Amino acid sequence: MFKKTLEQVVTYEAGKPIELVMREFGIKPDEIIKLGSNENPYGSAPRVVEIIQKNAHKASMYPDDSMFELKNALASKWSVKSQNVIIGAGSDQILEFCMHALNHENACVLMAKTTFAMYEVYAKIANVEVCKTPSDEHKLEEFESLYRASLERGKRVSAIFLCVPNNPLGECLDSAAVESFIQKIGKDTLIIIDGAYQEFATYKDKAKAFSPSSLSAKYENVIYLGTFSKAYGLGGMRVGYGIADSKIIAMLYKVRAPFNITTLSLQAAITALQDQDFVVQCVEQNAKEMLAYESFARENGFSFIPSYANFITLSRAGLDSTHLCDWLLQKGLIIRNLASYGLNAFRITIGTKKQNERVFELLKAYGANHNHLSNHS
Amino acid sequence: MFKKTLEQVVTYEAGKPIELVMREFGIKPDEIIKLGSNENPYGSAPRVVEIIQKNAHKASMYPDDSMFELKNALASKWSVKSQNVIIGAGSDQILEFCMHALNHENACVLMAKTTFAMYEVYAKIANVEVCKTPSDEHKLEEFESLYRASLERGKRVSAIFLCVPNNPLGECLDSAAVESFIQKIGKDTLIIIDGAYQEFATYKDKAKAFSPSSLSAKYENVIYLGTFSKAYGLGGMRVGYGIADSKIIAMLYKVRAPFNITTLSLQAAITALQDQDFVVQCVEQNAKEMLAYESFARENGFSFIPSYANFITLSRAGLDSTHLCDWLLQKGLIIRNLASYGLNAFRITIGTKKQNERVFELLKAYGANHNHLSNHS
Repeated sequence: MFKKTLEQVVTYEAGKPIELVMREFGIKPDEIIKLGSNENPYGSAPRVVEIIQKNAHKASMYPDDSMFELKNALASKWSVKSQNVIIGAGSDQILEFCMHALNHENACVLMAKTTFAMYEVYAKIANVEVCKTPSDEHKLEEFESLYRASLERGKRVSAIFLCVPNNPLGECLDSAAVESFIQKIGKDTLIIIDGAYQEFATYKDKAKAFSPSSLSAKYENVIYLGTFSKAYGLGGMRVGYGIADSKIIAMLYKVRAPFNITTLSLQAAITALQDQDFVVQCVEQNAKEMLAYESFARENGFSFIPSYANFITLSRAGLDSTHLCDWLLQKGLIIRNLASYGLNAFRITIGTKKQNERVFELLKAYGANHNHLSNHS
Repeated sequence: MFKKTLEQVVTYEAGKPIELVMREFGIKPDEIIKLGSNENPYGSAPRVVEIIQKNAHKASMYPDDSMFELKNALASKWSVKSQNVIIGAGSDQILEFCMHALNHENACVLMAKTTFAMYEVYAKIANVEVCKTPSDEHKLEEFESLYRASLERGKRVSAIFLCVPNNPLGECLDSAAVESFIQKIGKDTLIIIDGAYQEFATYKDKAKAFSPSSLSAKYENVIYLGTFSKAYGLGGMRVGYGIADSKIIAMLYKVRAPFNITTLSLQAAITALQDQDFVVQCVEQNAKEMLAYESFARENGFSFIPSYANFITLSRAGLDSTHLCDWLLQKGLIIRNLASYGLNAFRITIGTKKQNERVFELLKAYGANHNHLSNHS
């Protein structure tokens, strides 16, 4: 009855929710720190919370499916037209639209070896071959070789995923380098520039900033993805967007179901866009706390990749990430084990100062209690 | 770059939102009556509104993607196990999961001539042939002939859509008849029983009540769909569900993206399930007001199909539904023109007493102003 090819699709394992830790370990919600899913530790902007409360009575009413106001606000923010914008239930859903809409006949898709896990899941659902670069981190020359090699063996490349900055590793390509890369790729390949964490990268280094308006004006095979889930503090509301040439947007609209975001999500996103001060504060605070993590890592023998996002990926020779993450979970600290990515490493969302101090304390306590593990190296 | 087959997919036109009427006709929101999308005219239960307000500060946090609590609550309500339940962003999304997951090789899907428009949209996105019964309303003998005819011409039937009650016409099959029908269909065909309006049908006539637990236990090729969008008053929150054999649910899970409903939607649905009194009140009130529509229709020469849902579809010889709907829109009344379904008819959501009285007043005024149109018949 179902597609045989689905058998190889592994259901994505989301970061563990607070509810699960409560249920499994009987820890009170107030004592649980969740730094496993890169949510905004400062919450949502107060005026977003207010607008949700004020509009709660509209829960029974479908949203304005034209998303007139939000699309206009995003178009204005990014200096594009409304027909260059599509809204998704998270930028995730735009990835899904792309994978459903693209012609994958005799094609493969390209991605970095270690990048956002959903790229591969959506590709497998669409039953398209996945080709990964040899390096964990994004290396454009490897993408280029992979692209040429695919064409040489008679395969089309239907899509290339670039995660800038890259989740879960944190590194970020320069936008100028990406633009040079785009020019080497044929027009039949959709280049997906996933900017879910762009606000953090841009703050740290202007060379990482992408211009969706310039990209969508110049290239008819590029889509830029943004989200409200991270710097904008709306992870639970599921709102993201894609910006591209209007012909791409029109095709993606064909695979979009109506009412794909909630009435309150629409209101929340419109309001969140109006409060740029909140976003700036969160991004600034994130940068400060990132420095604390880097110092901690250096002082305690952890390796890390300099991160352009709101998380940091750490590892230490001889330390088993699965053992560590399970131990931390029992103490009420949720971080992300990268074992499912094939790495003996762990990703921590940069939390508030108070949360981070607790993280450092626990990591030190773990080290003191599990010295024998460090001796394995 | 994109699938050629998408070119024939027509983007679904949702019911007009209040925002559009405000923008186009400059009518104040308080003066607009929206009876175009079968939302609950009594809103959401007060305690649902409260729980949303109370949880608004959690907008930044992803939902519990296991949906542990909601799935357990639904499993308990329907006397099934949690592994028989999948949650979607509206029951719409479960339809989408089915269309993405099914093997459509050399297959077609069957549906009534006039039924929920999204069945055809999702089928076209999945690039599967759509076969419709000759009659507008559901006739099981026509479905059976169509099924046999498909097999005879060497086509598999990957799915059969049954909308009970049927949107936008309002008629409803008896559950016993549907069960006899199921027994005539091969196990390779998924039978989708869309019960979006079941609460209204069951109240009117117990013969229309379906038992998801019995269906999922007896048949490994049947899925029952329910929604929080109608009787439960959560249209704007996008929550629906599917109940089926656990093997079906596991396959649908493979095409589900994580975090497919919002954090507040999860809370709202859990709370809505706890307030059955609200649902019963809405359904009772709907039945009372339905009688008012039937009387009005008889007294004013409108034809109608007895409806088992929270809407009624009306027509009158010589009356042009597009002209009527456009005229009503300018007066601030949004109803649903069925011209896009190829019918010269219109569907009105049963509103509150006050809203309905305004509808009757406007329909009478239209009749008085457009007598010449009635003479065309």
